[in-house]
Amino acid sequence: MISYNFYNPTKLVFGENTIEKIGELLSNVGSKKVLMIAGSGSIKKNNVYDITINSLRKNGIEWRECWGVRANPSLAKVREAIAIAKKEKVDAVLAVGGGSVIDTTKIVAAGVYADDIWQVFERKEKIKKALPIFTILTLSATASEMNCSAVISNDEENKKWGTGSPLLYPVASIIQPDVQNTLPWNQTVNGALDAMAHIMEYYFIGTNEETSIAVNEALLKTIIKSVEGLKVDAKDTISRANLAWAITLGLNGISGAGLKGGDWACHDMSHSISCMYPQIAHGGALGVIFPAWMKYVCDSNPQQFKRFAKNVLLTDDIESGIYELKQLLKSWNAATSLRELGVKEEDLRKLAEMTVSRGNIGKLSVLRLADVEKILEFAF
Amino acid sequence: MISYNFYNPTKLVFGENTIEKIGELLSNVGSKKVLMIAGSGSIKKNNVYDITINSLRKNGIEWRECWGVRANPSLAKVREAIAIAKKEKVDAVLAVGGGSVIDTTKIVAAGVYADDIWQVFERKEKIKKALPIFTILTLSATASEMNCSAVISNDEENKKWGTGSPLLYPVASIIQPDVQNTLPWNQTVNGALDAMAHIMEYYFIGTNEETSIAVNEALLKTIIKSVEGLKVDAKDTISRANLAWAITLGLNGISGAGLKGGDWACHDMSHSISCMYPQIAHGGALGVIFPAWMKYVCDSNPQQFKRFAKNVLLTDDIESGIYELKQLLKSWNAATSLRELGVKEEDLRKLAEMTVSRGNIGKLSVLRLADVEKILEFAF
Repeated sequence: MISYNFYNPTKLVFGENTIEKIGELLSNVGSKKVLMIAGSGSIKKNNVYDITINSLRKNGIEWRECWGVRANPSLAKVREAIAIAKKEKVDAVLAVGGGSVIDTTKIVAAGVYADDIWQVFERKEKIKKALPIFTILTLSATASEMNCSAVISNDEENKKWGTGSPLLYPVASIIQPDVQNTLPWNQTVNGALDAMAHIMEYYFIGTNEETSIAVNEALLKTIIKSVEGLKVDAKDTISRANLAWAITLGLNGISGAGLKGGDWACHDMSHSISCMYPQIAHGGALGVIFPAWMKYVCDSNPQQFKRFAKNVLLTDDIESGIYELKQLLKSWNAATSLRELGVKEEDLRKLAEMTVSRGNIGKLSVLRLADVEKILEFAF
Repeated sequence: MISYNFYNPTKLVFGENTIEKIGELLSNVGSKKVLMIAGSGSIKKNNVYDITINSLRKNGIEWRECWGVRANPSLAKVREAIAIAKKEKVDAVLAVGGGSVIDTTKIVAAGVYADDIWQVFERKEKIKKALPIFTILTLSATASEMNCSAVISNDEENKKWGTGSPLLYPVASIIQPDVQNTLPWNQTVNGALDAMAHIMEYYFIGTNEETSIAVNEALLKTIIKSVEGLKVDAKDTISRANLAWAITLGLNGISGAGLKGGDWACHDMSHSISCMYPQIAHGGALGVIFPAWMKYVCDSNPQQFKRFAKNVLLTDDIESGIYELKQLLKSWNAATSLRELGVKEEDLRKLAEMTVSRGNIGKLSVLRLADVEKILEFAF
């Protein structure tokens, strides 16, 4: 029987003029001093920073700032922020940014109470306590705003690993979709690709979990429809809002209910790629890897791949489903090969080795080194 | 723009052999003595009671019992249970049953801390505190196991009213779908009809909320498919599980995200019917009222009614959508008229008056006394 736990206590505040509520949300938990964590400064251009600060000030909340979180966020930045949080004795952390900023902020929240937070990623320690986490989302992609996991890159040891704990659920997250109206097109697309990949990691191992499978088809179709809307008009706030909510639902527990934890082989491969090539966006890598993986493993669950072709891409068979998916991504100007993304052919073997360094990957079809290498070749 | 808050901290434990986890779940919040609230005794026949009690015993948790919650649960039973909870100084409440038992239990949890809990329904008081609430679901219908509202009938004053508070979210709810395998067919159908109505209350006021609209279509189609599966085999545990999860998603916040609070006119009418005729099941009344309401108000949002016909019932236009819905319910042996349910024609006016006694109803189309009377006539 379908068995699972569903638990997600994050309060989501969604819609127009919601960022200005951040001070009140922090006040609700009695916060007096917060560490704000952010990226490279785009929030100063689109007014998000000013609205945030004004709201903190209005609610009598002191704040400190830690800037410079990059894509594929680094352990070094996490450690820098933990040091500030400890020195300044903040009582809460606030991410203002996309998934990288939120993931960093989550690990800072736990890191304040840990001897060495990386030991948690090494599975040698558990998260025992964390500061209350708040987020203001500026780029929909990872759903980190409404889940309890985080992925961090340890550059020194060449590892990009994830961890999770119920203590890492944000207390509250604000999604004001119109702040994403000014995103570059490729960032919108990469966010959509990341979310589609989250949903597909669950979807393709499905068999009889009709409720989750049907909901996932609805989410995939909505994401596609919304991106098409934004292609016509990047300031179409209705498409922007629908895309944002579908992306959050893509990895907040709803998409995975009953689907045995998901497959995640494509994510493992993509993490290796952006670990070796930090300039390659996670969503971009996923958009290339997924069709190659589908081609390699579809015989393990042909009914479900056929269903995907029919219900999501409105075509007849597995092969044309994969073809139409690639055509769709191409029409969004997404890369369709690893070569196009800048990966070198001579690195494929090493990428495959990195990917299986913690063991074989995947669930629908367990992939060994040779399988991963083959998929990367398909994707090249 | 679509604006809403989403917050639902209930932990859902779903699947095979999950009832036996209740003791552990109570222990997690430090409970030592719990008040178990139940209906007329069916849980003694299907072993749910024994498994529950064994789990409590194994975890060293004392318990008291309050039996006899009826369908359309009464304020009198709520007051009886509050008295026991206070006298016995329990530290938690546990519903073992369907929506009526869960609603009763929620109001008991809050009633322990109130002078007169009915004042909350009269909107003269607010819920300030509540005991931790736990539930073991034995009949999927209301989604009360994963939301924060409750409906109670005050027989003396002839009122069936609802209330809600974030304090009424269960801490944890257990759904073990196979315990529903032995339900009479009409109870399975009434549960499905209740859930379809919840979803449709939101769905039909939709316009641009694509994510929620598409998810709701997925849920409606899954409910229909699952009921069809159970019609063939009532012990088809896969259909039972998919139905249970779709029903919970039907009113746990997901189905309503961005959909302006829903319409609820059909629920208001159905509440009056089961207030005057307590033997009429809530789901049964909704199955009759909804098609009549659709016929009366469809011109207020024709696009959405057309979309429903096409995407949920696979037919062409609004009228045939309503017709196919009625045919579907008929094929499930559900009543298709108020007359069939046992309502007397001479009561229609009084039912209409009861329905608008707190003001006009509905949102898509605001309904006055004459409108309600007309819809009831359509349904008769």
